[in-house]
Amino acid sequence: MEITVIGGGSWGTAIARLLKINGHEVSFYVRDPKTKKAINDTGCNDKYLPGISLEGLKATTNIDVAIDGSRLVVMAVPSQNVRSVFETQQHLLDGKIIVNLSKGLELGTLDRISQIAEELLPKSTFVALSGPSHAEEVGRNIPTAVVAASKDIDVAKMIQNVFSNDSFRVYTNTDLVGVEIGGALKNIIALAAGMSEGLGFGDNTTAALATRGIYEMSKLGLALGAEAQTFNGLSGIGDLIVTCTSTHSRNRRAGILIGKGLSKDQASLEVGQVVEGIKTTKSAYELSKKHKISMPITQKLYEVLYQALDPRKAVVDLMRRDYKDEIEPLFKH
Amino acid sequence: MEITVIGGGSWGTAIARLLKINGHEVSFYVRDPKTKKAINDTGCNDKYLPGISLEGLKATTNIDVAIDGSRLVVMAVPSQNVRSVFETQQHLLDGKIIVNLSKGLELGTLDRISQIAEELLPKSTFVALSGPSHAEEVGRNIPTAVVAASKDIDVAKMIQNVFSNDSFRVYTNTDLVGVEIGGALKNIIALAAGMSEGLGFGDNTTAALATRGIYEMSKLGLALGAEAQTFNGLSGIGDLIVTCTSTHSRNRRAGILIGKGLSKDQASLEVGQVVEGIKTTKSAYELSKKHKISMPITQKLYEVLYQALDPRKAVVDLMRRDYKDEIEPLFKH
Repeated sequence: MEITVIGGGSWGTAIARLLKINGHEVSFYVRDPKTKKAINDTGCNDKYLPGISLEGLKATTNIDVAIDGSRLVVMAVPSQNVRSVFETQQHLLDGKIIVNLSKGLELGTLDRISQIAEELLPKSTFVALSGPSHAEEVGRNIPTAVVAASKDIDVAKMIQNVFSNDSFRVYTNTDLVGVEIGGALKNIIALAAGMSEGLGFGDNTTAALATRGIYEMSKLGLALGAEAQTFNGLSGIGDLIVTCTSTHSRNRRAGILIGKGLSKDQASLEVGQVVEGIKTTKSAYELSKKHKISMPITQKLYEVLYQALDPRKAVVDLMRRDYKDEIEPLFKH
Repeated sequence: MEITVIGGGSWGTAIARLLKINGHEVSFYVRDPKTKKAINDTGCNDKYLPGISLEGLKATTNIDVAIDGSRLVVMAVPSQNVRSVFETQQHLLDGKIIVNLSKGLELGTLDRISQIAEELLPKSTFVALSGPSHAEEVGRNIPTAVVAASKDIDVAKMIQNVFSNDSFRVYTNTDLVGVEIGGALKNIIALAAGMSEGLGFGDNTTAALATRGIYEMSKLGLALGAEAQTFNGLSGIGDLIVTCTSTHSRNRRAGILIGKGLSKDQASLEVGQVVEGIKTTKSAYELSKKHKISMPITQKLYEVLYQALDPRKAVVDLMRRDYKDEIEPLFKH
């Protein structure tokens, strides 16, 4: 199949390589001419996916040429940049199948990426591909499992066939809302878990925050129309486990620094790259207010990040709340 | 309240200390006279909970005296030893509230601990206390959250009040089956995750195995009458996160050794203590056959442990199964 991949970061590169290996004709758009030159001259994207051969893969900086002729377009750009790509390429993109790889909510609108697609590409079918998948590991053919979510199960199954191979296993799910919310909000949990670690608390505390965090995420998901069970899956706890255990997680690292007393801006500066969870905390907090969902961890994290609450007091407050049942009636069958 | 704690291991000791701090009168039974002497002479159980003060706590090796006069008995002995304690102390125990701390299924009968209690202590009310709770951290007042599960919600709430304090948060749950199954079967996942690590696979693989593992656990749980949502809670993914991230997990360590080519017996010998997950894999495999539940990870692990399947082939087999939906209709509302 003719497939376009838009975005030459680590995940876009790993997926372009995977699709090429699976026998597809891949048009690979990268913005940076240096990245294009590196890929085409050396067969490697040393800046974002070092040491991994991209044999046979050619990159272009001409997005029109890259999109033209493909039935399927894979979006591998940051969440906040998706709208501008959809807007400027609307004439070429609308009607094609869109597979989105980024995990986030648009600031201000609080939109999921599928909502931006619905608005700007009404003739397209949208698929979210999500799950625990470090690009460096997919690039080394390490066994990985992800989920392809779409309202249209036939399209999800087509994506499953196109992407799957012996080391990359794709499940399907029709709960697009749940998969998108899980991917976006798990960065909040990583921040909270990191903060607890930075405060010197233990594995018990991290596990408690992660568990109660994914619980409140699924409550918000339910209010937005998701299935609770999706948060139990690859795009929920699967991605969460990777984020909580990986030393590479920027959100966890920023949380550790905040727990040690740095402000969110100091922590971001120290991490050196965008910390998605900081913005997502704000969006999720606003969504929880809008939908009247109690999200105590998100709320306390919001107070730490945006209202200067002492992190230690935030954790103590969370431990001193009224005694609760573990599962609210909302979730009972 | 007058409370008996039976079992002087690390978890029993940490809980006896917690209850004492909470202001209860604690009768603490330990089997080993040396442990009793250490606790009573030095105020410390250096063998199982080193460096932690047990001020005011007295131990006894007389189980009759320890039980007599208490309304509530906390069982902190290994799963395979519970039946013999219930049998020999039946006359004293029957009718009291039993709070069980161990996580396992009885070999042969495949019974959960609550089923043994139902059989031998029919007048008692049973509570399972479970969740991500390293004893050493609870002993240092590190913030911890657990779940108290009982069919009788009023008793669960009473236990919540008795055990909770500013650093130990107890949730209630009436899904006793789910809480017991989650605690027991999570050791299987830890073994599988460790095995993948020992084979040199990555974080993606660990997360995929953990996620799909807890999914098949919850399928078995459903067949046994549990609520799916419980596996999303502290006794399910919460405990799992601790097990997957902790270097102290015996099951994970045994899994790593098996992935590196050792037999289950060699791995157990190397770990030096009982590896619960090895026996639980057998019990869970037998339960899955009995209830006709597809549990591919448990089955492959069973084949590795008991039928000499090559671990690498087991993982490859799991990746090559037929393409699936993430959530089967069983879980859909």
